[in-house]
Amino acid sequence: MAYKAKIRVTLRPSILDVQGKAVQHALDNLGYSTVDSVRIGKYIEVMIDEDSLDDARRIGDEICRKLLANTVMEDYSIELETIK
Amino acid sequence: MAYKAKIRVTLRPSILDVQGKAVQHALDNLGYSTVDSVRIGKYIEVMIDEDSLDDARRIGDEICRKLLANTVMEDYSIELETIK
Repeated sequence: MAYKAKIRVTLRPSILDVQGKAVQHALDNLGYSTVDSVRIGKYIEVMIDEDSLDDARRIGDEICRKLLANTVMEDYSIELETIK
Repeated sequence: MAYKAKIRVTLRPSILDVQGKAVQHALDNLGYSTVDSVRIGKYIEVMIDEDSLDDARRIGDEICRKLLANTVMEDYSIELETIK
């Protein structure tokens, strides 16, 4: 079965998001003063060919912890969609 | 009212995702051969202080088209959450 893992990797709330601050500053200069904060992370779509949803979730979790997220300073969330 | 715009910016499907290919190759080397494809984009959370959901959506759409997404080669989607 094919599964699509929609993974979001974000900086922990306690960590200063320098890139987000820069974008917020740029938006302010463009006149978007109602934008209070901007936080930027990664959005990763992974197609996984496994036998069950549980297997796909286990693989998704492993690849986040081993490669896609730096678990010291980032959080990740996984949304799984059954494709066929 | 405060709204959280959860924005996903992804390369158009027709565009080769070189970064995604590199990650897929690394996952293959780590033994994750059931990973068929990887596509990497941006996940951006923007706090918007507007009077209505429609105003927040309009601002979200504008900042995507003007700054956050390169609409020539990227697609974007906006999910809005009412905070308070």
